[in-house]
Amino acid sequence: MGDTVRTDVLIVGAGPAGLMAAAWMAQTGVQAMIIDQKSHHTRCGRADGLESRTLEILDSFGLADRVWAEANHTVEIALWGGTVDGKLQRQSVTANSQPGWSRFYESTLSQAKVEEYLMEYVRGRGNVEVRRETTPTTLEIDYDTIDDHSKFPIRMNLESMASLPKPYFNGMDTPGSDTSSEPYSDDSGYAGMDTVVEAKYIVGCDGAHSWLRKQLGLELEGESSSDFWGVLDIIPLTNFPDIRKRSIVKTKHGTLMMIPRERKLVRIYVELHPDVAARYREEQDGEVLMNEVEKIMWPYIMKTKHIDWSTAYTVGQRVCRKIGLHNRIFLAGDAIHTHSPKSGQGMNVSMQDTFNLGWKLASVIQGTLHPKILETYQQERLPVAERLIALDQRICRGMCSRRDVDNETSHGHFHEDHKRAMEQENSSASGLAVIYEPNLLVASTTPCVAGAKPANDEMALSHSKRSLATNIQVGARIPSMLIINQSDAQPCHLQQILPSTGQWNLIIFGADIANPRQMWRLSHLEETLGQPESVIQRLNNQASMTRRGVACVGMYLVHCADRLGIELQDLPTIFRPWTEDRGVDYSKVWVDEEAYHHTGGGQLYKSFGIGPEGCMVLLRPDQHLAFISDMDDVKGLERFLMSITPEECRAPEHC
Amino acid sequence: MGDTVRTDVLIVGAGPAGLMAAAWMAQTGVQAMIIDQKSHHTRCGRADGLESRTLEILDSFGLADRVWAEANHTVEIALWGGTVDGKLQRQSVTANSQPGWSRFYESTLSQAKVEEYLMEYVRGRGNVEVRRETTPTTLEIDYDTIDDHSKFPIRMNLESMASLPKPYFNGMDTPGSDTSSEPYSDDSGYAGMDTVVEAKYIVGCDGAHSWLRKQLGLELEGESSSDFWGVLDIIPLTNFPDIRKRSIVKTKHGTLMMIPRERKLVRIYVELHPDVAARYREEQDGEVLMNEVEKIMWPYIMKTKHIDWSTAYTVGQRVCRKIGLHNRIFLAGDAIHTHSPKSGQGMNVSMQDTFNLGWKLASVIQGTLHPKILETYQQERLPVAERLIALDQRICRGMCSRRDVDNETSHGHFHEDHKRAMEQENSSASGLAVIYEPNLLVASTTPCVAGAKPANDEMALSHSKRSLATNIQVGARIPSMLIINQSDAQPCHLQQILPSTGQWNLIIFGADIANPRQMWRLSHLEETLGQPESVIQRLNNQASMTRRGVACVGMYLVHCADRLGIELQDLPTIFRPWTEDRGVDYSKVWVDEEAYHHTGGGQLYKSFGIGPEGCMVLLRPDQHLAFISDMDDVKGLERFLMSITPEECRAPEHC
Repeated sequence: MGDTVRTDVLIVGAGPAGLMAAAWMAQTGVQAMIIDQKSHHTRCGRADGLESRTLEILDSFGLADRVWAEANHTVEIALWGGTVDGKLQRQSVTANSQPGWSRFYESTLSQAKVEEYLMEYVRGRGNVEVRRETTPTTLEIDYDTIDDHSKFPIRMNLESMASLPKPYFNGMDTPGSDTSSEPYSDDSGYAGMDTVVEAKYIVGCDGAHSWLRKQLGLELEGESSSDFWGVLDIIPLTNFPDIRKRSIVKTKHGTLMMIPRERKLVRIYVELHPDVAARYREEQDGEVLMNEVEKIMWPYIMKTKHIDWSTAYTVGQRVCRKIGLHNRIFLAGDAIHTHSPKSGQGMNVSMQDTFNLGWKLASVIQGTLHPKILETYQQERLPVAERLIALDQRICRGMCSRRDVDNETSHGHFHEDHKRAMEQENSSASGLAVIYEPNLLVASTTPCVAGAKPANDEMALSHSKRSLATNIQVGARIPSMLIINQSDAQPCHLQQILPSTGQWNLIIFGADIANPRQMWRLSHLEETLGQPESVIQRLNNQASMTRRGVACVGMYLVHCADRLGIELQDLPTIFRPWTEDRGVDYSKVWVDEEAYHHTGGGQLYKSFGIGPEGCMVLLRPDQHLAFISDMDDVKGLERFLMSITPEECRAPEHC
Repeated sequence: MGDTVRTDVLIVGAGPAGLMAAAWMAQTGVQAMIIDQKSHHTRCGRADGLESRTLEILDSFGLADRVWAEANHTVEIALWGGTVDGKLQRQSVTANSQPGWSRFYESTLSQAKVEEYLMEYVRGRGNVEVRRETTPTTLEIDYDTIDDHSKFPIRMNLESMASLPKPYFNGMDTPGSDTSSEPYSDDSGYAGMDTVVEAKYIVGCDGAHSWLRKQLGLELEGESSSDFWGVLDIIPLTNFPDIRKRSIVKTKHGTLMMIPRERKLVRIYVELHPDVAARYREEQDGEVLMNEVEKIMWPYIMKTKHIDWSTAYTVGQRVCRKIGLHNRIFLAGDAIHTHSPKSGQGMNVSMQDTFNLGWKLASVIQGTLHPKILETYQQERLPVAERLIALDQRICRGMCSRRDVDNETSHGHFHEDHKRAMEQENSSASGLAVIYEPNLLVASTTPCVAGAKPANDEMALSHSKRSLATNIQVGARIPSMLIINQSDAQPCHLQQILPSTGQWNLIIFGADIANPRQMWRLSHLEETLGQPESVIQRLNNQASMTRRGVACVGMYLVHCADRLGIELQDLPTIFRPWTEDRGVDYSKVWVDEEAYHHTGGGQLYKSFGIGPEGCMVLLRPDQHLAFISDMDDVKGLERFLMSITPEECRAPEHC
């Protein structure tokens, strides 16, 4: 037996979902441990699609620049069909995205790189312990203490499979020896030893065959088809003209989809006859799949001298309907949804699962949110998993030529539903249009009826007013628009002032603050939000004790008055905080105006549908809209915040 | 006595100019050594202005993303004047750049960071030896072999001042010891030893007090004024509203200029009375300078608790008129031009000096260019240095309030010439509008007179035809415009397909190649440029022997036909080169069309003034235009290339 160690969060599995959870812990300073049975991150193959929302999320951790620079950007999609005389015909070439969806668009980069950068980020902070070649062997849950969130009710036994610790090379004996291609050495001093980990929370990101899910007696439910598919990453030798576009080719020999990747690679999904699938499984030779590709692509030549990776699979769309237990145990990623890789969603929805969960766990551990909010994980992410499965079923139906065999002429025909499903794949499924239903962290929306008022203002639940910003939705992530800094005129995307720190953000859309009425409303905010006894100030004081200087709620002003007609000094001090040694913080006031030289900007109010009254928007740490209200409705805002924070934070005397 | 070592290029001084020279050597694989008397790169203060052309250059080495992300971008400039009643009044706020100049704009980042990133780049390659704490002691030149460029006529004695070699820490005895904040340890095994270096070429980047310049008996010539200035980097505590803009403030107490920087720093240049300058020199206390700043800024408050760096200087505009000797010895940077730092040009023009020189040296050493072309360094860079000095004199005249003392009311007045000079500073002086006069590497331009033809086509010098692209200029750097890749529709900036590899690039602007006449001209190019015995193919074969797979001349097609109406397979093979194992190179054909969703593009032909006939443009490895001709004038192009390549490359039998 080895040691017993305690950690706040134990993450099982260091794939994209596990690493995204670990990134939140690393960023917020929560003590955590991430374990994985493999000795190393993914090296090739597997997932490769990065949706625009995932890139927005990576950007919120400062990781998008690098990923974006290395990824291949999939700008166009081409549909090809087999003709009656056995040739191939291009049916359409269109944009692979819609305008205004995001500042990023769909890209492809190896899962290996995404894991590498996330791991580098996690290791760079120091509060997350990484144990590779480590498997869980037993799980115990102490139900007596499960509701006391100061306790560690989860006990898990870990077995290290690492070989004996490698002798330390001092560089003199074996100069230049490269024992690992990861830039950090793994903590492999636990070889052959067991460790007992006591944790407050556990996150199972251990894949489709999840050990944790099985321990909990949970199953993936859903249908499994008998459609076989092969996958390859190759450098193609071809005269096919759309090889650098995303292409779908449907012929009587079967269907394939190609997605161009980084380093001249192309990912190919190819439909397989069961006999071919069986032969591939036996021979494990990518050439078996290439033969099928060549057949479908004829009369174009399609060969390769470099197969980077290949595999074969049967399509099964299955989902686990219990993904959060007792607000203590959570499942994410492939452990709760398996589907075909063809919609390119796997890595995305998986990372978005734990992007949703991570800040909630950190906030509860740091005492800024009430533990009950952890139930929103299941409420918010299960519907996403279910929609993903439904969408994948439609795409698979459209892609599978074997389901069309009775009609020779329909080969090469793209059903309308297949086309619509592909379009939806790029919006809703990718996370851009995910809208969480009202719950503890998403205020419900009331229609704004003139004169209608709750009987008792103080007691009423906080409702969002949709009419104040008609084109953005409570529960959805806030779209990013270019805004201009009041003080230095530097353009910046709205989302870029909302990094993933665990901080909530209150954005005051003050509208035309050169208008005395709007300026008066702004000053009124100072009198309510700015007071030391206000809920936000109390929450921020509380947060300052537990979180590396990150506030609980940040405040920003985005106005649309003429920037040069407004002086920062004339604005309420909550928008120009001052510290003794660093002076004014110039990052709080932004303007919706066009940047110099017609380089964008000036479209936010119009695009969001915000009127001359302005509004106040509360964003969660994951950039999703929690609450929209009038600029004057500080009481409503405070009620909402009070409803989700721990009791001890709410009373002034405790903060 | 120590060893005698040989290197192709010896670079004296590891500031920005020396490191840019070393970056070229690192990139092209030329053996070089860079020495510096300091043990470490600059840590704070000194230069900080990065002009847009410098950012374009850093981008050509893949370094701009990082610099751009960390730098502060100076979007606006504010002019303030003292009023008759002793207050301050804002006179104007305008953009600090003009539209279309560059995809980058003026930024500030510490010289320390620029040096750090360049050094990292140089060390990352391995063919450039870096010796710090090393000074040259003697210089000998063997004039007998100076014209034979296979010889090493330069002999220099180096003295290492490094302390005794540090014992090697194996990480066990002193875990985590950080012996240097540079990520690589210096080669300090030469302590106390002399080394004799024999070099083919020497580049002196050893600053205003250049040892090398003095050895050569050369001097900086020019005037020294008695104007004293102080410089500080501070984090300001202020209520001045334009503190995050570039601001110039002129009052009866003096003039100051402020430039916002990264990490909340502001760089301030402040005019000093001689008495104050003397006191600062004695006390070396930044507070002495802050007192002057406070006086000028009154009635605004201007204090600080953090002075990062300060110094004082007298303005002297001086230039060395001999900057290249015998095509063997070159001077660059502060060694050849000193001026006030107020125009923010120092680091830029210095790096641009060696950006001009580096590829020329590498090409001569690798045998792709004739040594005589080295004379163009003096021809091209001396006029830039002289214009810089003249501009700085105008700016200093405008900035100096003491030259206005006879007229009380003129305090706070900005002369028109001062304003014009500041505008020019952002264009011509920054390198964007630098136009090299015709020389060996810049074909002269002939007006296109109908019917006028050289008497003997074969013998005539190659001339550029201005009329073919009326808005771009031979000798200037090619502006960057957004273009779209033919095969994958990814948008890209023209300059981004022209990285600094030492390769020349021939860009065929084929215009509307859906027009049969243009397509015919394109096919004709294949017949001339594509043949194994063509000059370009011969030069590329020659280059492939000496340069890590980098061609001598790359070829690109940028057309403006409807992209989806053109198939890559129908284009000449020179634009879709094929290799046995990697297939087609899809990076050669680009389109001037608008990107999806109105995100730019489609303006190149209009902006460059290229007509329906198209044209052919030869770019030097530094992105400057060498030659513009009709698409059919392959003979003229070949004559130009033959005139600058070594004899042995020209005859077919040798290549």
